[in-house]
Amino acid sequence: MITEQHPKAVIVIFGATGDLAKRKLFPSIYRLVRNNKIGKEFAVVGVGRRPLTNEEFRHNVQESIQSSIEDSTETDEFSSHFYYHPFDVTNPSSYNELKTVLHELDNSYNTEGNRMFYLAMAPEFFGTIASNLKKEGLTDTKGWSRLVIEKPFGHDLPSAQTLNQELREVFNEDQIYRIDHYLGKEMVQNIEVIRFANAIFEPLWNNRYISNIQITSSEVLGVEDRGRYYEHSGALRDMVQNHMLQMVALLAMEPPIKLATDEIRSEKVKVLRALRPVNEENVSDYFVRGQYYSGSLFNKSVPAYREESNVDEQSMTETYVAGKVMIDNFRWAGVPFYIRTGKRLKEKSTKIVIQFKDIPMNLYYNRKEDLAPNLLVIHIQPDEGITLQLNAKKTGSGVYGKPIELDYCNNCLDGINTPEAYEKLIYDCMRGDATNFTHWDEVALSWSYVDTISHAWKKEKAELAFYRAGSAGPKEADELLERDSFHWWHVGDDLGC
Amino acid sequence: MITEQHPKAVIVIFGATGDLAKRKLFPSIYRLVRNNKIGKEFAVVGVGRRPLTNEEFRHNVQESIQSSIEDSTETDEFSSHFYYHPFDVTNPSSYNELKTVLHELDNSYNTEGNRMFYLAMAPEFFGTIASNLKKEGLTDTKGWSRLVIEKPFGHDLPSAQTLNQELREVFNEDQIYRIDHYLGKEMVQNIEVIRFANAIFEPLWNNRYISNIQITSSEVLGVEDRGRYYEHSGALRDMVQNHMLQMVALLAMEPPIKLATDEIRSEKVKVLRALRPVNEENVSDYFVRGQYYSGSLFNKSVPAYREESNVDEQSMTETYVAGKVMIDNFRWAGVPFYIRTGKRLKEKSTKIVIQFKDIPMNLYYNRKEDLAPNLLVIHIQPDEGITLQLNAKKTGSGVYGKPIELDYCNNCLDGINTPEAYEKLIYDCMRGDATNFTHWDEVALSWSYVDTISHAWKKEKAELAFYRAGSAGPKEADELLERDSFHWWHVGDDLGC
Repeated sequence: MITEQHPKAVIVIFGATGDLAKRKLFPSIYRLVRNNKIGKEFAVVGVGRRPLTNEEFRHNVQESIQSSIEDSTETDEFSSHFYYHPFDVTNPSSYNELKTVLHELDNSYNTEGNRMFYLAMAPEFFGTIASNLKKEGLTDTKGWSRLVIEKPFGHDLPSAQTLNQELREVFNEDQIYRIDHYLGKEMVQNIEVIRFANAIFEPLWNNRYISNIQITSSEVLGVEDRGRYYEHSGALRDMVQNHMLQMVALLAMEPPIKLATDEIRSEKVKVLRALRPVNEENVSDYFVRGQYYSGSLFNKSVPAYREESNVDEQSMTETYVAGKVMIDNFRWAGVPFYIRTGKRLKEKSTKIVIQFKDIPMNLYYNRKEDLAPNLLVIHIQPDEGITLQLNAKKTGSGVYGKPIELDYCNNCLDGINTPEAYEKLIYDCMRGDATNFTHWDEVALSWSYVDTISHAWKKEKAELAFYRAGSAGPKEADELLERDSFHWWHVGDDLGC
Repeated sequence: MITEQHPKAVIVIFGATGDLAKRKLFPSIYRLVRNNKIGKEFAVVGVGRRPLTNEEFRHNVQESIQSSIEDSTETDEFSSHFYYHPFDVTNPSSYNELKTVLHELDNSYNTEGNRMFYLAMAPEFFGTIASNLKKEGLTDTKGWSRLVIEKPFGHDLPSAQTLNQELREVFNEDQIYRIDHYLGKEMVQNIEVIRFANAIFEPLWNNRYISNIQITSSEVLGVEDRGRYYEHSGALRDMVQNHMLQMVALLAMEPPIKLATDEIRSEKVKVLRALRPVNEENVSDYFVRGQYYSGSLFNKSVPAYREESNVDEQSMTETYVAGKVMIDNFRWAGVPFYIRTGKRLKEKSTKIVIQFKDIPMNLYYNRKEDLAPNLLVIHIQPDEGITLQLNAKKTGSGVYGKPIELDYCNNCLDGINTPEAYEKLIYDCMRGDATNFTHWDEVALSWSYVDTISHAWKKEKAELAFYRAGSAGPKEADELLERDSFHWWHVGDDLGC
């Protein structure tokens, strides 16, 4: 059941001295309190290996908030809800002590035994923590217990299955909240509304009217200090298995019977089941992998991936993926979903372009090649908004067309009030709304799709395409679309805000 | 055949000392020259009752241009192409003298005998002029002869038929250019492009997806000094028979086989043939007539219509019309086209709102009555542009909708370069493109539709609804839509330009 107002809970953050806690979790909880989404009845227990006092921890929390929220006030009162507990994840007595702390906080903050265990740390301990939580009785509470788990959820299907089995010995599926922070983004959540709350789109949302869909998520950053992790991950596992395929599922799903978690997830699962599997023989027809070499970005030269720290000099890890995802069902037969994502590209931008088919008589108005196809662009980040590219009459005598853009900017109006993904996701979890988290079935199906591709790549069944850091990616990604007579669109970059 | 560049002609303006010539025709011809649409090979002969010299006439022309075009230059050279010829429309010798003048100008300006006769004067002389032009041999030229004729084209079907017969004794249908200056407006011409050059609209452009269409043309002016004419016309004849029904036809027509004059006109005629006739018994179900009483506009009090000069104190003439036009064909069965037009309303604005049907499950997202129907708004004047009202997610937690507007502003970008309707229409006529002029069949069918309404009104089969000057019109116009569970939309008023 979804609680609407002022959920109560003790939030236990594993990895409370880490980067995610500092950059995202503390500020998000602060905003939830300030926006009156949660009241006074909450406490946060940070656990970590380092020995910190409550005061030191609270100081860190305040610092994190002040550095990310300009007009923060009453951070003293807020941070008084935070407690630190030094912790060894493999030591049962750590859990036992934590149990006592939670009991006390339950009472002093009147949180009714509700507990959110947030695993914001290295994935190798996820299983250990879960089983110890159960063994030592921390999940044995009169309120709810929920586990929030960060990516990566395994590094392939077998490892994900093992992890899931470990978790499921302690938590039911409906207690497990697998974070995909893209699902917390305003404009990703908007996909569903744009599709199902507008009478004009649903009739067009199929292979009779849509020619192809393009999803781009490009970063300017390189691997930074994550070389060790990234060498074993690569863009396919790091971005495609989760974020990119989640966006494909939201764009492609059938209208759910109702707007309830299970119904929506069930429709997304159906999309993932309909993905046309790629195999070793045809992987090059569908996917391109790339890796950046040295180049420059914003007038600063940057090293090649193979020169980054903790990266193998002969690394074959992909920092870029472009793919053609086919959904073999009635609605989408013949409509490619092109995806691409990569590091060290020329701009940071996530957007979706839906390209509609040409008018039945292409020459009708296109007498001077003056028409473009209709495009619906959903800007995810950093711009948030919608652009619709139409054709209108060129001003003046004669009837010639020209493409025009109708724009709506979401973050121009709501500005800094747009909530952060993590703010919404923590709140969703506290309210028991799992809609914007990933169900196990989705994880399993997307690993299964992605595994074939990584296997084929491991066997060197496809070239590694090198691209210059700061460029738009490898030319092979353009060729992928050219083979289908399409090209990547660059539109609506200026929402006029 | 349509000439593309630098058409040559002598333009004869009947009524050259009148208001239309001064405000619209002279500046339009000037802009055509300045924009290099016509070259040096043209002359204009102004004819009128008043005795003017060429110099006086040229002075008037220069004044007209300087007052309407800020950066006008070389008006001396331009006005040297203008000649005045004092004229009595009923006196054959006037025509004979004019014939000589035209011959001379043909030679000196090398206009190849092309002649445009522009009737910018009181309609009672249209027939006389035409027959004298023929009788005295002015249409007997080696180039083309075309007749441009201003509204009103008759005041009902019989009078229009009489006038047409008179004209047709001299000119063929394809030599007659009946002006409806709305057809010269950028955004009215854009209707065709928006509909047929965008793949996403045509599939939705029917009674499965459109719930109703609303066309509003409101003026702030009263009858001014046109009381005498207006008393015998009224809003129905002055606005509905021509401009409003033309917009209905453009919105409703089937896609023409090709973008050629005859094909487009033939499709428009088919729409007019499908109009559901109104009769004396049901006129009140379909049409509302109104008349303004005294009120205020822009903080200035203004008199009632019945107090205007040359208006009967008991006048039953309508200064406002709202109507529900039904098109009984396969595409539009059940979709009302609501039209309204009136004088002394609170704002000057012409726009079209296409309201799409609600999503099949209205309650799907509309849990807090937070959704609005999708609307496509075509702004004709004074704003020119397109607004699409969609629903998107309300920023924040939970999935609630809110209406958003995607805007495109046409005259923000092209600004003062947007050509005036008359500029394009004169050029069209010189090039022989009759697409944006009204064919006789359209005139006849729209008179026939409108005549039933005026007959019913004459027999007082419907109340005259009074509305305050400066208001939004009579409440009866709102009730017309309320009976169908609709309401007039006020949207997209700010195109952000």
